[in-house]
Amino acid sequence: MKLSKRQEAIAHIVRENGPVTGSAIAEHLDVTRSALRSDLAVLTMIGVLEARPNVGYYYVGLSPKNQTAEILRSYSVHDALSQAVIVSPETNLYNTIVTMFTEDVGTILVCEDSYLQGVVSRKDLLRASMGQTDPHTMPISMIMTPVSKLIVVEPSDSLAVAAQKMIDYEVDCLPVVVREDDESQDNPKRRLKVVGRVSKTTVTKAFLECSTQEV
Amino acid sequence: MKLSKRQEAIAHIVRENGPVTGSAIAEHLDVTRSALRSDLAVLTMIGVLEARPNVGYYYVGLSPKNQTAEILRSYSVHDALSQAVIVSPETNLYNTIVTMFTEDVGTILVCEDSYLQGVVSRKDLLRASMGQTDPHTMPISMIMTPVSKLIVVEPSDSLAVAAQKMIDYEVDCLPVVVREDDESQDNPKRRLKVVGRVSKTTVTKAFLECSTQEV
Repeated sequence: MKLSKRQEAIAHIVRENGPVTGSAIAEHLDVTRSALRSDLAVLTMIGVLEARPNVGYYYVGLSPKNQTAEILRSYSVHDALSQAVIVSPETNLYNTIVTMFTEDVGTILVCEDSYLQGVVSRKDLLRASMGQTDPHTMPISMIMTPVSKLIVVEPSDSLAVAAQKMIDYEVDCLPVVVREDDESQDNPKRRLKVVGRVSKTTVTKAFLECSTQEV
Repeated sequence: MKLSKRQEAIAHIVRENGPVTGSAIAEHLDVTRSALRSDLAVLTMIGVLEARPNVGYYYVGLSPKNQTAEILRSYSVHDALSQAVIVSPETNLYNTIVTMFTEDVGTILVCEDSYLQGVVSRKDLLRASMGQTDPHTMPISMIMTPVSKLIVVEPSDSLAVAAQKMIDYEVDCLPVVVREDDESQDNPKRRLKVVGRVSKTTVTKAFLECSTQEV
Protein backbone atom coordinates (compact mmCIF):
# COMPACT_ATOMS: atom_id res chain seq x y z
CA MET A 1 0.00 0.00 0.00
CA LYS A 2 1.65 3.19 -1.18
CA LEU A 3 0.27 6.59 -0.18
CA SER A 4 0.01 9.28 -2.86
CA LYS A 5 2.00 12.49 -2.48
CA ARG A 6 -1.11 14.36 -1.37
CA GLN A 7 -2.09 11.63 1.11
CA GLU A 8 1.40 11.82 2.58
CA ALA A 9 1.08 15.61 2.84
CA ILE A 10 -2.26 15.27 4.64
CA ALA A 11 -0.87 12.66 7.05
CA HIS A 12 2.06 14.96 7.76
CA ILE A 13 -0.20 17.96 8.47
CA VAL A 14 -2.40 15.97 10.84
CA ARG A 15 0.64 14.48 12.55
CA GLU A 16 2.09 17.93 13.23
CA ASN A 17 -1.14 19.83 13.99
CA GLY A 18 -3.75 17.27 15.00
CA PRO A 19 -6.53 17.29 15.98
CA VAL A 20 -7.35 19.37 12.95
CA THR A 21 -10.51 19.86 10.88
CA GLY A 22 -10.91 18.97 7.22
CA SER A 23 -11.31 22.65 6.36
CA ALA A 24 -8.04 23.51 8.10
CA ILE A 25 -6.23 20.77 6.15
CA ALA A 26 -7.73 22.12 2.92
CA GLU A 27 -6.51 25.60 3.80
CA HIS A 28 -3.00 24.26 4.52
CA LEU A 29 -2.89 22.64 1.09
CA ASP A 30 -4.66 25.52 -0.65
CA VAL A 31 -7.37 23.29 -2.14
CA THR A 32 -11.12 23.04 -1.57
CA ARG A 33 -12.56 20.82 1.16
CA SER A 34 -14.30 18.62 -1.39
CA ALA A 35 -11.04 17.99 -3.27
CA LEU A 36 -9.77 16.24 -0.13
CA ARG A 37 -12.81 14.08 0.48
CA SER A 38 -11.55 10.87 -1.14
CA ASP A 39 -8.01 11.17 0.29
CA LEU A 40 -9.40 11.64 3.80
CA ALA A 41 -11.71 8.68 3.25
CA VAL A 42 -8.76 6.48 2.23
CA LEU A 43 -6.58 7.63 5.12
CA THR A 44 -9.26 6.93 7.72
CA MET A 45 -10.20 3.63 6.10
CA ILE A 46 -6.65 2.26 6.27
CA GLY A 47 -6.28 3.60 9.80
CA VAL A 48 -3.63 6.28 9.29
CA LEU A 49 -6.09 8.94 10.50
CA GLU A 50 -9.05 8.79 12.81
CA ALA A 51 -11.99 11.22 12.60
CA ARG A 52 -13.92 12.37 15.66
CA PRO A 53 -17.18 14.33 15.29
CA ASN A 54 -16.91 18.03 16.15
CA VAL A 55 -13.15 17.72 16.76
CA GLY A 56 -11.39 16.74 13.58
CA TYR A 57 -8.73 14.31 12.41
CA TYR A 58 -6.21 12.59 14.66
CA TYR A 59 -2.99 10.99 13.51
CA VAL A 60 -2.81 7.26 14.26
CA GLY A 61 -0.08 6.22 11.85
CA LEU A 62 0.70 3.18 9.79
CA SER A 63 1.17 -0.05 11.71
CA PRO A 64 4.81 -0.84 12.52
CA LYS A 65 4.82 -3.61 9.90
CA ASN A 66 3.52 -1.25 7.25
CA GLN A 67 6.09 1.35 8.14
CA THR A 68 8.77 -1.33 7.84
CA ALA A 69 7.48 -2.24 4.40
CA GLU A 70 7.52 1.43 3.36
CA ILE A 71 11.08 1.88 4.55
CA LEU A 72 12.36 -1.29 2.89
CA ARG A 73 10.61 -0.40 -0.37
CA SER A 74 12.25 3.01 -0.33
CA TYR A 75 15.67 1.40 -0.96
CA SER A 76 16.46 1.73 -4.64
CA VAL A 77 18.74 -0.35 -6.83
CA HIS A 78 20.55 2.89 -7.67
CA ASP A 79 21.55 3.43 -4.01
CA ALA A 80 22.64 -0.16 -3.43
CA LEU A 81 24.30 -1.38 -6.64
CA SER A 82 27.91 -2.49 -6.79
CA GLN A 83 30.37 -2.45 -9.64
CA ALA A 84 29.95 -5.15 -12.28
CA VAL A 85 32.83 -7.49 -13.07
CA ILE A 86 32.98 -7.74 -16.85
CA VAL A 87 34.74 -9.86 -19.48
CA SER A 88 34.48 -9.68 -23.28
CA PRO A 89 32.71 -12.46 -25.25
CA GLU A 90 36.04 -13.81 -26.65
CA THR A 91 37.57 -14.36 -23.19
CA ASN A 92 38.29 -18.08 -22.76
CA LEU A 93 36.81 -20.27 -20.02
CA TYR A 94 40.08 -20.51 -18.10
CA ASN A 95 40.60 -16.75 -17.91
CA THR A 96 36.99 -16.18 -16.94
CA ILE A 97 37.39 -18.60 -14.01
CA VAL A 98 40.60 -16.83 -13.00
CA THR A 99 38.73 -13.48 -13.09
CA MET A 100 35.97 -14.93 -10.92
CA PHE A 101 38.56 -15.96 -8.30
CA THR A 102 40.67 -12.80 -8.40
CA GLU A 103 37.58 -10.53 -8.20
CA ASP A 104 35.82 -12.92 -5.80
CA VAL A 105 32.36 -12.57 -7.34
CA GLY A 106 29.73 -15.22 -8.02
CA THR A 107 28.58 -13.78 -11.35
CA ILE A 108 30.45 -12.23 -14.28
CA LEU A 109 28.80 -10.09 -16.95
CA VAL A 110 29.84 -10.57 -20.57
CA CYS A 111 29.84 -7.22 -22.39
CA GLU A 112 30.92 -5.61 -25.63
CA ASP A 113 31.60 -1.86 -25.19
CA SER A 114 29.71 -2.05 -21.88
CA TYR A 115 26.56 -3.39 -23.61
CA LEU A 116 25.28 -6.60 -22.06
CA GLN A 117 25.76 -9.80 -24.12
CA GLY A 118 25.32 -12.44 -21.42
CA VAL A 119 26.06 -13.64 -17.90
CA VAL A 120 28.04 -16.54 -16.42
CA SER A 121 27.65 -17.81 -12.86
CA ARG A 122 29.87 -20.07 -10.75
CA LYS A 123 27.42 -22.85 -11.56
CA ASP A 124 27.88 -22.34 -15.33
CA LEU A 125 31.65 -22.38 -14.94
CA LEU A 126 31.60 -25.49 -12.77
CA ARG A 127 29.40 -27.29 -15.29
CA ALA A 128 31.66 -26.25 -18.18
CA SER A 129 34.84 -27.22 -16.36
CA MET A 130 33.45 -30.71 -15.74
CA GLY A 131 32.94 -31.22 -19.49
CA GLN A 132 35.38 -32.36 -22.15
CA THR A 133 36.14 -28.87 -23.43
CA ASP A 134 39.59 -27.28 -23.42
CA PRO A 135 39.25 -24.32 -21.05
CA HIS A 136 42.06 -22.46 -22.83
CA THR A 137 40.29 -22.35 -26.20
CA MET A 138 36.57 -22.32 -25.32
CA PRO A 139 35.23 -18.72 -25.57
CA ILE A 140 32.91 -17.68 -22.74
CA SER A 141 30.24 -16.65 -25.27
CA MET A 142 29.63 -20.39 -25.84
CA ILE A 143 28.91 -20.95 -22.15
CA MET A 144 27.15 -17.76 -21.03
CA THR A 145 23.39 -17.35 -20.69
CA PRO A 146 22.62 -15.01 -23.62
CA VAL A 147 21.09 -11.57 -23.07
CA SER A 148 17.76 -12.66 -24.60
CA LYS A 149 17.20 -14.98 -21.62
CA LEU A 150 18.42 -12.64 -18.89
CA ILE A 151 16.50 -11.01 -16.09
CA VAL A 152 17.69 -7.45 -15.44
CA VAL A 153 16.75 -4.45 -13.29
CA GLU A 154 17.04 -0.71 -13.81
CA PRO A 155 18.57 1.79 -11.37
CA SER A 156 15.17 3.30 -10.54
CA ASP A 157 13.69 -0.06 -9.48
CA SER A 158 13.34 -0.66 -5.76
CA LEU A 159 15.67 -3.18 -4.18
CA ALA A 160 12.56 -5.18 -3.22
CA VAL A 161 11.78 -5.63 -6.92
CA ALA A 162 15.32 -6.92 -7.48
CA ALA A 163 14.99 -9.27 -4.48
CA GLN A 164 11.68 -10.60 -5.85
CA LYS A 165 13.26 -11.30 -9.26
CA MET A 166 16.24 -13.12 -7.71
CA ILE A 167 13.89 -15.36 -5.71
CA ASP A 168 11.43 -15.94 -8.59
CA TYR A 169 14.10 -16.76 -11.18
CA GLU A 170 16.49 -18.46 -8.74
CA VAL A 171 19.53 -16.35 -9.57
CA ASP A 172 22.05 -14.84 -7.15
CA CYS A 173 22.80 -11.66 -9.07
CA LEU A 174 21.15 -9.31 -11.59
CA PRO A 175 22.75 -6.92 -14.08
CA VAL A 176 21.64 -3.31 -13.56
CA VAL A 177 21.10 -1.75 -16.99
CA VAL A 178 19.89 1.35 -18.74
CA ARG A 179 17.89 0.73 -21.93
CA GLU A 180 19.12 2.59 -25.01
CA ASP A 181 17.77 2.68 -28.51
CA ASP A 182 20.39 1.75 -31.05
CA GLU A 183 19.79 4.07 -34.00
CA SER A 184 22.87 2.95 -35.91
CA GLN A 185 21.21 -0.10 -37.45
CA ASP A 186 18.61 -0.33 -40.19
CA ASN A 187 16.44 -2.31 -37.82
CA PRO A 188 16.81 -0.43 -34.53
CA LYS A 189 16.60 -2.46 -31.34
CA ARG A 190 17.02 -1.91 -27.64
CA ARG A 191 20.49 -2.26 -26.18
CA LEU A 192 21.24 -2.71 -22.49
CA LYS A 193 24.05 -0.58 -21.12
CA VAL A 194 25.50 -2.07 -17.93
CA VAL A 195 25.79 0.31 -14.96
CA GLY A 196 26.35 -2.25 -12.18
CA ARG A 197 24.99 -5.33 -10.47
CA VAL A 198 22.87 -6.22 -7.46
CA SER A 199 23.12 -9.56 -5.68
CA LYS A 200 21.74 -11.40 -2.68
CA THR A 201 24.79 -9.96 -0.88
CA THR A 202 23.47 -6.45 -1.68
CA VAL A 203 20.08 -7.37 -0.19
CA THR A 204 21.72 -8.99 2.87
CA LYS A 205 23.64 -5.75 3.51
CA ALA A 206 20.43 -3.69 3.21
CA PHE A 207 18.66 -6.05 5.64
CA LEU A 208 21.52 -5.59 8.06
CA GLU A 209 21.57 -1.83 7.70
CA CYS A 210 17.83 -1.62 8.44
CA SER A 211 18.12 -3.95 11.43
CA THR A 212 20.87 -1.99 13.17
CA GLN A 213 19.21 1.43 13.39
CA GLU A 214 19.91 3.02 16.74
CA VAL A 215 17.40 5.00 18.79
CA MET B 1 17.73 -0.66 21.68
CA LYS B 2 15.52 -3.41 23.02
CA LEU B 3 12.68 -2.61 25.42
CA SER B 4 12.21 -4.84 28.48
CA LYS B 5 8.99 -6.82 28.87
CA ARG B 6 7.68 -4.32 31.41
CA GLN B 7 8.61 -1.32 29.24
CA GLU B 8 6.75 -2.92 26.36
CA ALA B 9 3.74 -3.49 28.62
CA ILE B 10 3.78 0.17 29.71
CA ALA B 11 4.08 1.39 26.11
CA HIS B 12 1.13 -0.83 25.19
CA ILE B 13 -1.05 0.50 28.03
CA VAL B 14 -0.31 4.13 27.13
CA ARG B 15 -0.90 3.43 23.45
CA GLU B 16 -4.32 1.95 24.19
CA ASN B 17 -5.47 4.28 26.98
CA GLY B 18 -3.38 7.45 26.68
CA PRO B 19 -3.28 10.08 28.01
CA VAL B 20 -2.94 8.19 31.28
CA THR B 21 -1.33 9.00 34.62
CA GLY B 22 1.58 7.14 36.16
CA SER B 23 -0.69 5.94 38.98
CA ALA B 24 -3.18 4.50 36.49
CA ILE B 25 -0.37 2.63 34.70
CA ALA B 26 0.83 1.26 38.06
CA GLU B 27 -2.69 0.08 38.84
CA HIS B 28 -2.93 -1.64 35.43
CA LEU B 29 0.29 -3.53 36.11
CA ASP B 30 -0.51 -4.12 39.78
CA VAL B 31 2.75 -2.56 41.01
CA THR B 32 3.56 0.56 42.99
CA ARG B 33 4.05 3.92 41.31
CA SER B 34 7.67 4.09 42.41
CA ALA B 35 8.45 0.69 40.88
CA LEU B 36 7.67 2.23 37.48
CA ARG B 37 9.75 5.35 37.89
CA SER B 38 12.86 4.20 36.03
CA ASP B 39 10.91 2.51 33.22
CA LEU B 40 8.88 5.67 32.64
CA ALA B 41 12.08 7.71 32.68
CA VAL B 42 13.63 5.47 30.02
CA LEU B 43 10.52 5.49 27.85
CA THR B 44 10.23 9.28 27.91
CA MET B 45 13.98 9.75 27.38
CA ILE B 46 14.05 7.64 24.22
CA GLY B 47 10.87 9.33 23.00
CA VAL B 48 8.42 6.43 23.11
CA LEU B 49 6.27 8.31 25.64
CA GLU B 50 5.79 11.97 26.33
CA ALA B 51 4.75 13.34 29.74
CA ARG B 52 2.55 16.42 30.10
CA PRO B 53 2.06 18.03 33.52
CA ASN B 54 -1.37 17.49 35.08
CA VAL B 55 -2.42 15.25 32.18
CA GLY B 56 -0.25 12.15 32.05
CA TYR B 57 1.63 10.11 29.53
CA TYR B 58 1.03 10.19 25.77
CA TYR B 59 2.16 7.52 23.34
CA VAL B 60 4.57 8.80 20.70
CA GLY B 61 6.10 5.54 19.56
CA LEU B 62 9.48 4.47 18.30
CA SER B 63 10.60 6.20 15.14
CA PRO B 64 9.67 4.26 11.98
CA LYS B 65 13.32 3.31 11.43
CA ASN B 66 13.62 1.96 14.95
CA GLN B 67 10.42 0.00 14.58
CA THR B 68 11.80 -1.45 11.37
CA ALA B 69 14.97 -2.46 13.17
CA GLU B 70 12.93 -4.09 15.95
CA ILE B 71 10.84 -6.05 13.47
CA LEU B 72 13.83 -7.22 11.43
CA ARG B 73 15.71 -8.25 14.56
CA SER B 74 12.73 -10.28 15.71
CA TYR B 75 13.31 -12.77 12.85
CA SER B 76 15.13 -15.77 14.24
CA VAL B 77 17.33 -18.29 12.48
CA HIS B 78 14.97 -20.97 13.79
CA ASP B 79 12.00 -19.48 11.89
CA ALA B 80 13.91 -19.00 8.65
CA LEU B 81 16.30 -21.93 8.29
CA SER B 82 16.12 -24.36 5.39
CA GLN B 83 17.13 -28.00 5.19
CA ALA B 84 20.85 -28.69 4.90
CA VAL B 85 22.15 -30.71 1.95
CA ILE B 86 24.64 -33.18 3.39
CA VAL B 87 27.28 -35.61 2.12
CA SER B 88 29.61 -37.90 4.09
CA PRO B 89 33.37 -37.18 4.29
CA GLU B 90 34.20 -40.17 1.99
CA THR B 91 32.00 -38.92 -0.87
CA ASN B 92 34.19 -38.22 -3.89
CA LEU B 93 34.51 -34.83 -5.60
CA TYR B 94 32.52 -35.91 -8.66
CA ASN B 95 29.51 -37.12 -6.66
CA THR B 96 29.59 -34.01 -4.49
CA ILE B 97 29.40 -31.81 -7.61
CA VAL B 98 26.52 -33.94 -8.92
CA THR B 99 24.72 -33.49 -5.57
CA MET B 100 25.26 -29.73 -5.76
CA PHE B 101 23.59 -29.65 -9.19
CA THR B 102 20.74 -32.02 -8.42
CA GLU B 103 19.90 -30.24 -5.14
CA ASP B 104 20.66 -26.83 -6.66
CA VAL B 105 22.41 -25.40 -3.61
CA GLY B 106 25.53 -23.28 -3.36
CA THR B 107 26.91 -24.94 -0.23
CA ILE B 108 27.05 -28.56 0.92
CA LEU B 109 27.67 -29.63 4.51
CA VAL B 110 29.94 -32.57 5.19
CA CYS B 111 28.65 -34.58 8.16
CA GLU B 112 29.18 -37.83 9.99
CA ASP B 113 25.99 -39.00 11.77
CA SER B 114 24.62 -35.45 11.33
CA TYR B 115 27.62 -33.97 13.21
CA LEU B 116 29.37 -31.22 11.24
CA GLN B 117 32.82 -32.09 9.82
CA GLY B 118 33.18 -29.38 7.19
CA VAL B 119 31.64 -27.35 4.37
CA VAL B 120 32.23 -27.11 0.61
CA SER B 121 31.05 -24.21 -1.55
CA ARG B 122 30.72 -23.90 -5.35
CA LYS B 123 33.97 -21.95 -5.23
CA ASP B 124 35.79 -24.82 -3.50
CA LEU B 125 34.45 -27.31 -6.05
CA LEU B 126 35.35 -25.08 -9.00
CA ARG B 127 38.90 -24.66 -7.65
CA ALA B 128 39.27 -28.41 -7.10
CA SER B 129 37.87 -29.31 -10.51
CA MET B 130 40.43 -27.02 -12.17
CA GLY B 131 43.27 -28.93 -10.50
CA GLN B 132 45.03 -32.12 -11.52
CA THR B 133 43.07 -34.38 -9.19
CA ASP B 134 40.88 -37.29 -10.32
CA PRO B 135 37.35 -36.24 -9.27
CA HIS B 136 36.27 -39.89 -9.02
CA THR B 137 38.81 -40.80 -6.35
CA MET B 138 39.36 -37.55 -4.42
CA PRO B 139 37.33 -37.65 -1.15
CA ILE B 140 35.51 -34.40 -0.32
CA SER B 141 37.14 -34.36 3.14
CA MET B 142 40.39 -33.36 1.37
CA ILE B 143 38.72 -30.31 -0.18
CA MET B 144 36.25 -29.10 2.45
CA THR B 145 36.85 -26.28 4.90
CA PRO B 146 37.22 -28.19 8.20
CA VAL B 147 34.85 -27.59 11.11
CA SER B 148 37.58 -25.89 13.17
CA LYS B 149 37.57 -22.99 10.70
CA LEU B 150 33.83 -22.70 10.20
CA ILE B 151 31.48 -19.91 11.19
CA VAL B 152 28.14 -21.26 12.44
CA VAL B 153 24.91 -19.97 13.99
CA GLU B 154 22.44 -21.46 16.45
CA PRO B 155 18.65 -21.63 15.99
CA SER B 156 18.04 -19.01 18.70
CA ASP B 157 20.26 -16.41 16.98
CA SER B 158 18.47 -13.62 15.14
CA LEU B 159 18.64 -13.66 11.36
CA ALA B 160 20.39 -10.27 11.60
CA VAL B 161 23.27 -11.97 13.46
CA ALA B 162 23.50 -14.57 10.68
CA ALA B 163 23.44 -11.81 8.03
CA GLN B 164 26.22 -9.96 9.84
CA LYS B 165 28.39 -13.11 9.96
CA MET B 166 27.86 -13.82 6.24
CA ILE B 167 28.92 -10.27 5.36
CA ASP B 168 31.86 -10.18 7.81
CA TYR B 169 33.28 -13.56 6.79
CA GLU B 170 32.28 -13.30 3.11
CA VAL B 171 30.38 -16.57 2.94
CA ASP B 172 27.02 -17.24 1.26
CA CYS B 173 25.70 -19.82 3.71
CA LEU B 174 26.06 -20.82 7.37
CA PRO B 175 25.39 -24.18 9.03
CA VAL B 176 22.79 -23.97 11.79
CA VAL B 177 23.95 -26.16 14.68
CA VAL B 178 23.16 -27.21 18.22
CA ARG B 179 26.19 -27.66 20.49
CA GLU B 180 26.38 -30.98 22.30
CA ASP B 181 28.88 -32.31 24.79
CA ASP B 182 30.34 -35.59 23.69
CA GLU B 183 30.70 -37.66 26.86
CA SER B 184 31.75 -40.82 25.06
CA GLN B 185 35.41 -39.86 24.82
CA ASP B 186 38.07 -39.66 27.52
CA ASN B 187 38.71 -36.09 26.51
CA PRO B 188 35.20 -34.73 26.02
CA LYS B 189 34.73 -31.97 23.44
CA ARG B 190 31.91 -30.04 21.91
CA ARG B 191 30.22 -31.52 18.85
CA LEU B 192 28.02 -29.55 16.46
CA LYS B 193 24.80 -31.26 15.46
CA VAL B 194 23.46 -29.87 12.17
CA VAL B 195 19.81 -28.78 12.18
CA GLY B 196 19.75 -26.77 8.93
CA ARG B 197 21.34 -23.90 7.05
CA VAL B 198 20.74 -20.20 6.44
CA SER B 199 21.98 -18.41 3.34
CA LYS B 200 21.85 -15.02 1.67
CA THR B 201 18.78 -16.44 -0.11
CA THR B 202 17.13 -16.88 3.31
CA VAL B 203 17.87 -13.25 4.16
CA THR B 204 16.66 -12.06 0.74
CA LYS B 205 13.35 -13.86 1.31
CA ALA B 206 12.99 -12.26 4.76
CA PHE B 207 13.71 -8.82 3.27
CA LEU B 208 11.03 -9.45 0.67
CA GLU B 209 8.51 -10.68 3.21
CA CYS B 210 9.00 -7.54 5.32
CA SER B 211 8.74 -5.25 2.31
CA THR B 212 5.44 -6.65 1.06
CA GLN B 213 3.30 -6.27 4.19
CA GLU B 214 -0.19 -5.21 3.24
CA VAL B 215 -2.31 -2.74 5.20
